[in-house]
Amino acid sequence: MRYEGCMASLSDDQVHELDRWFRAANYLAVGQIYLLDNPLLERPLVREDIKPRLLGHWGTTPGLNLVWTHLNRLIRERDAEAIVLCGPGHGGPAAVANAWLEGTYSEVFPAVSWDKEGMGLLFRQFSFPGGIPSHVAPETPGSIHEGGELGYVLSHAYGAAMDNPELLVAAVIGDGEFETGPLAASWHANKFVDPVHDGAVLPILSLNGWKIANPTIPARIHRDELESLLRGYGHHVITVEGDEPADVHRQMAAAMDEAHAMVREIWRAAREEGDLERRPWPMILLVTPKGWTGPAHVDGKPVEGTWRAHQVPLAGTRDNDEHRAQLEEWLRSYRPVELFAADGRPVEQIVGQAPVGTRRMSANPHANGGLLKRPLRLRDWRASAVEVERPGGSIHEPTRVLGRYLIDVVRDNDATFRIFGPDETASNRLDAVYEVTDKVWAADILDVDEHLARSGRVMEILSEHTCQGWLEGYLLTGRHGLFSCYEAFIHIVDSMLNQHAKWLKTTRDIEWRPPIASLNYLLSSHVWRQDHNGFSHQDPGFIDHVVNKKAEVVRVYLPPDTNTLLSTMAHCLQSEHYVNVVVSGKQPSFDWLDAEQADLHCARGLGIWDWASNDGGDPDVVVAAAGDVPTLEALAAVSLLREHLPDLRVRFVNVVDLMRLQDEREHPHGMGDREFDSVFTTDTPTVFAYHGYPWLIHRLTYRRTNHDNIHVRGYKEEGTTTTPFDMVMMNDIDRYHLVMDVIDRVPGLASRAGGVRQLMVDTRRRARQWTRTHGDDLPEVRDWTWDASAGPARGASPSTTADGDTAADNL
Amino acid sequence: MRYEGCMASLSDDQVHELDRWFRAANYLAVGQIYLLDNPLLERPLVREDIKPRLLGHWGTTPGLNLVWTHLNRLIRERDAEAIVLCGPGHGGPAAVANAWLEGTYSEVFPAVSWDKEGMGLLFRQFSFPGGIPSHVAPETPGSIHEGGELGYVLSHAYGAAMDNPELLVAAVIGDGEFETGPLAASWHANKFVDPVHDGAVLPILSLNGWKIANPTIPARIHRDELESLLRGYGHHVITVEGDEPADVHRQMAAAMDEAHAMVREIWRAAREEGDLERRPWPMILLVTPKGWTGPAHVDGKPVEGTWRAHQVPLAGTRDNDEHRAQLEEWLRSYRPVELFAADGRPVEQIVGQAPVGTRRMSANPHANGGLLKRPLRLRDWRASAVEVERPGGSIHEPTRVLGRYLIDVVRDNDATFRIFGPDETASNRLDAVYEVTDKVWAADILDVDEHLARSGRVMEILSEHTCQGWLEGYLLTGRHGLFSCYEAFIHIVDSMLNQHAKWLKTTRDIEWRPPIASLNYLLSSHVWRQDHNGFSHQDPGFIDHVVNKKAEVVRVYLPPDTNTLLSTMAHCLQSEHYVNVVVSGKQPSFDWLDAEQADLHCARGLGIWDWASNDGGDPDVVVAAAGDVPTLEALAAVSLLREHLPDLRVRFVNVVDLMRLQDEREHPHGMGDREFDSVFTTDTPTVFAYHGYPWLIHRLTYRRTNHDNIHVRGYKEEGTTTTPFDMVMMNDIDRYHLVMDVIDRVPGLASRAGGVRQLMVDTRRRARQWTRTHGDDLPEVRDWTWDASAGPARGASPSTTADGDTAADNL
Repeated sequence: MRYEGCMASLSDDQVHELDRWFRAANYLAVGQIYLLDNPLLERPLVREDIKPRLLGHWGTTPGLNLVWTHLNRLIRERDAEAIVLCGPGHGGPAAVANAWLEGTYSEVFPAVSWDKEGMGLLFRQFSFPGGIPSHVAPETPGSIHEGGELGYVLSHAYGAAMDNPELLVAAVIGDGEFETGPLAASWHANKFVDPVHDGAVLPILSLNGWKIANPTIPARIHRDELESLLRGYGHHVITVEGDEPADVHRQMAAAMDEAHAMVREIWRAAREEGDLERRPWPMILLVTPKGWTGPAHVDGKPVEGTWRAHQVPLAGTRDNDEHRAQLEEWLRSYRPVELFAADGRPVEQIVGQAPVGTRRMSANPHANGGLLKRPLRLRDWRASAVEVERPGGSIHEPTRVLGRYLIDVVRDNDATFRIFGPDETASNRLDAVYEVTDKVWAADILDVDEHLARSGRVMEILSEHTCQGWLEGYLLTGRHGLFSCYEAFIHIVDSMLNQHAKWLKTTRDIEWRPPIASLNYLLSSHVWRQDHNGFSHQDPGFIDHVVNKKAEVVRVYLPPDTNTLLSTMAHCLQSEHYVNVVVSGKQPSFDWLDAEQADLHCARGLGIWDWASNDGGDPDVVVAAAGDVPTLEALAAVSLLREHLPDLRVRFVNVVDLMRLQDEREHPHGMGDREFDSVFTTDTPTVFAYHGYPWLIHRLTYRRTNHDNIHVRGYKEEGTTTTPFDMVMMNDIDRYHLVMDVIDRVPGLASRAGGVRQLMVDTRRRARQWTRTHGDDLPEVRDWTWDASAGPARGASPSTTADGDTAADNL
Repeated sequence: MRYEGCMASLSDDQVHELDRWFRAANYLAVGQIYLLDNPLLERPLVREDIKPRLLGHWGTTPGLNLVWTHLNRLIRERDAEAIVLCGPGHGGPAAVANAWLEGTYSEVFPAVSWDKEGMGLLFRQFSFPGGIPSHVAPETPGSIHEGGELGYVLSHAYGAAMDNPELLVAAVIGDGEFETGPLAASWHANKFVDPVHDGAVLPILSLNGWKIANPTIPARIHRDELESLLRGYGHHVITVEGDEPADVHRQMAAAMDEAHAMVREIWRAAREEGDLERRPWPMILLVTPKGWTGPAHVDGKPVEGTWRAHQVPLAGTRDNDEHRAQLEEWLRSYRPVELFAADGRPVEQIVGQAPVGTRRMSANPHANGGLLKRPLRLRDWRASAVEVERPGGSIHEPTRVLGRYLIDVVRDNDATFRIFGPDETASNRLDAVYEVTDKVWAADILDVDEHLARSGRVMEILSEHTCQGWLEGYLLTGRHGLFSCYEAFIHIVDSMLNQHAKWLKTTRDIEWRPPIASLNYLLSSHVWRQDHNGFSHQDPGFIDHVVNKKAEVVRVYLPPDTNTLLSTMAHCLQSEHYVNVVVSGKQPSFDWLDAEQADLHCARGLGIWDWASNDGGDPDVVVAAAGDVPTLEALAAVSLLREHLPDLRVRFVNVVDLMRLQDEREHPHGMGDREFDSVFTTDTPTVFAYHGYPWLIHRLTYRRTNHDNIHVRGYKEEGTTTTPFDMVMMNDIDRYHLVMDVIDRVPGLASRAGGVRQLMVDTRRRARQWTRTHGDDLPEVRDWTWDASAGPARGASPSTTADGDTAADNL
């Protein structure tokens, strides 16, 4: 083994001191789970010393404490810079204990002082009302990973390591988490590590053998099978196995040294010799008992080394004297007098083991990314805007133009901005960025490949989970990014979004955590233009999912054309601490607004488009749209209304910031009722063409005065492989149906516009028939353009069409 | 290699005949992608023969055709029974081509006849408006797997193989899909195969090297690394590699024989000798070029064997003469005259290669589970009901009682019912089932383990994706099941739910697919009682996600107590073709209804609880609740109102079937407006305590007359590790706040009940303070019980409390 020479051979004293830290962390962890008082066991435990509700997870905790102990040794002795992500995040007591031992806890929470009183509070507050959560939470210094929902620790770790060339990111993977899909996929993230510009991830598979109620798969397959699997994942496996602490300390120190030496060697070869061949990265397979050092048996049943150690091994300590005695014995087994001075402060031998300042993992700024974040350098998007002479007078592919804008973002923000996506950057037409960067690919590259390189700003793996995890890890460590994804399949990360939104919500109230960059989604290849892939690729429900999250952290944008997309993305990229969802098509589509108008429209979030309105301030009907395809259909409907019902006063409203529809009490972007009423009126029928499931618009507007008059068309879960226009017809959101809706909704109009309505019915039938015969859309649909001359000149007073008669009278 | 003796050594004639089928399938696939007419190339291709929109995925298709060719050989020559699941489901042309060659297509779609005319229609309809989808869709005979969203083919396959001891389920995994998390996790499903009672899954990793725009990871790591990984997943890897068809046919036939022999040997050893040791299961690593046998170059660029072959290799065939000539050359390269007679029917040598009748994979009833499904045998749930003498007079853990009911379901439905869950069956308190069955575990079993065995009805893996995929595969092949999961983490399968709901929606209109059993979710450990795990475990949004799906396939139930849970689950288990979501707590909670009342209440879906009402038919306020914890808080609020405002006429409404709230035009369970108004009135303030995000109630009721008067409390994304009552207080859904809401909403009450309101405010403050001091809930909250004597006797006329005065007058 070529790294043998670098490995520690510890003296007994060194082992003893490492074990002292380990025992201290275990003591503090057990204290957190059980004790209300008597933190130093200055007297025998009594009932009142015990919490009434025992909540916590002991089983995984000693393993985490061991890892922390030895990472600290590595940081100190090898001058490593490291952070640790605890996949078994329910092992909160471990992270809190180590942060307190390192002094960081008392620095960020002064009330939890570095003494007996602070230790008492540390114990009491854990999992206690008004205290701290039981998991490694946002409240835990040194953490960027909650871990309550399993599966994301490796992808978070790889995201953190990107563009941090000196950073070692240790990722503890529980053997339960090992079974999850997102974790299983994320092992392959090591094929995307750039050994020159990225740091390294050190996976530590904590094989304690058990989940809540079952053994784990990796613990119950043959060891050679597991090792074959881990080697197949691209790792050199270093095994540490045992249940005798001194022995395990020796093994673990050697394993850490070996792993670190391997990482340094890969870095050196790449950075000094330009050797960019992918080599196995080290990982540690850590095999220790679940609930190690805890009670071996409780009530005659085995606990240590079984699933029974998962949560609280001694459940009856408040009322059961025997349990309480066993708890006291357990706590005293760590020999607290050797760990803490009489004043409760850790003894010098412990204090001296902690790294210094920001090298402490609990104080490392990489684990508090807002400290490191610099604003993204963004040029004025208007320089990338498309020329728009008149509404509908030109055609662009919105995301393709955005791709050009992103060229500068990439160029100006090397090492702080990346684009993530599941094999879809080109499909979503952002491929202009390949003019200035490449897709990272550490595996084999062939001559036929395009835009693959060892270094780059674009991360593509066919795992939405890994993309999301990477981006979260990248943002949480202070950088910026964009996730481009097919709209339907972003649901794959619904649950990850939940967790990230919860993190953002919680950290808004944690003053020592400055804001991080927003998580920006660009959802393209959306429901209306998945006509080629069909029904399985059609789902606009991610928006509904996102708006359930806390209002102060979520934003949803539906830019209707190219310039509004640019304006929106520029805004999102420079925003902080939000989840921004931007939905935009990639197909050629009309430009409606020039740069200046787009800027204004996006700033307002929603507004009346005068050039498409002839309502004279007193509309007979409001036609509203949110989304690019709905905007097209709604404007085509407006032009049909103009042609066939020229006296009908139509107001056209476009919504780009969906949260504007909600009221200001519900969402910070919400519009006041008065302003809303000035747009949608208090009594005019509104026909609203919406990109997604129509009920969302009702949910957002149900408190509005005019809500009962709002009639929404959207996606109603009808679709297949067909033409774009057939898709909108299948969901009754097509121009002809919108005209029918207007006729049905405006009082008195139905009886007078029966002929127009019938024409719409007939045209739809003809369109359907044409499509089924020719396999393409009706020419008059395909060739439709907005006739700018038919409306009022932009800025002209629209009142010229208002004469006091109802439009219906003039039909 | 001990299976050598079983392997085919094909004659040249045999190879030629296999290749004939392969060529025919390829020809039919290309024809589907391109041709509008001239299916047999009886004349040179002209522009009008080509579809105007070319939609389809050629790249993966030849690999699927090869697999189908050789599975047919295996079925015929080794008397195997097999079905195939196409992970690359976008290779729809392959599945359709083979189904047509087998004659099945024309049997289920007579218009697509087994002749030239039918072939023409087969080509035309593919990806054509009014035709069929481009993917292996529900419309495709022989399929239970759409494959448009990648990741689920293996878990579906394992679900299909369960309890089908003679069935071989071939699962083709694309090397793109290989990168996804759900797929990566599902390799471990082989640790849950019972070799006596289950069939076998044969994974076939189709390594064609490319995704849409990138190479794939498994194609670009070293082959020994990939093989190490696959062996680590527990497989014996049989590699087939080449690009010369005859050679590949020979290899593939031998590989199929070897795999089949290995499977037979595992079965024999287990079934005849009782040898239940887990052994590596065979799999095939199939390495052929992407777009194999298609154009090598187009416009000077390499296509075959690159990502450019992913979709349509020749894009300009309608208008570009050169492309069209190349297409014709490509089609003719399959020598159609050797494949089809002049009338278009496949030649005898092809017809003779197809298995017979239901052995054809396209006609195998396992791939059309409704054909095989038998009703679940269910005993009357009332025999398992708990005794309820009076509302709130007893306490049970609802899911624990359900577990006892499930004992009989398991016992009476051996081989057709399974329970799936991510390590949570015991945690969700369904563990009574272990009295009659075990958890399946094919890996090592130790003495300390409980309820693990080689055979059983409970499937536990810490992968919600795998659980969901298993259950879907099990249902789609005609069986029954239940998925028990923590509420928050069911979001992990949001996207899988989408796809399954789409399948159910589509198959409702396919008459040759009879209904399958419903997909039943039991969501326990829900948002209100994750006080110990905290914020990351609190999310009730799956309901919102589900109700976006097509109304005719989704049902949501919120049983408020034990007997209503039993009634609901019994109903769901015997239902067909729905997604049923049942949310129920597991903690000890009050019984409200006896069996008879529960039966009636669940049949109604929502109703007035007379015993908790004193409104005399003319309420001052309606207090409504949906969900167990909201019902508790709402009833406690009602009892506070009785105590402090005895003259207020309160109507209590409980909702168990959430879809009853919607109107009958929106959902089949929807209540008519008249009936709704008779419960919620047209003008009475309603305070509604709801389990999930409050907006959903508005979305469901916005069309109701009294909607503006409905005031909803629910989860507003506030939570942490705290006590149960603190959790409800954090979200303002607690009893005291509901009383405040009533006082604020009933006209005139606020001014008269100011003292009561202040008492509520003070009590909340006191409750918060108590909790923070004692770490437990206020005793008067913990000890609260419903005082049945305070209300009208059950069945008594409630009119006794109505006297015409408004309650407010009497305050």
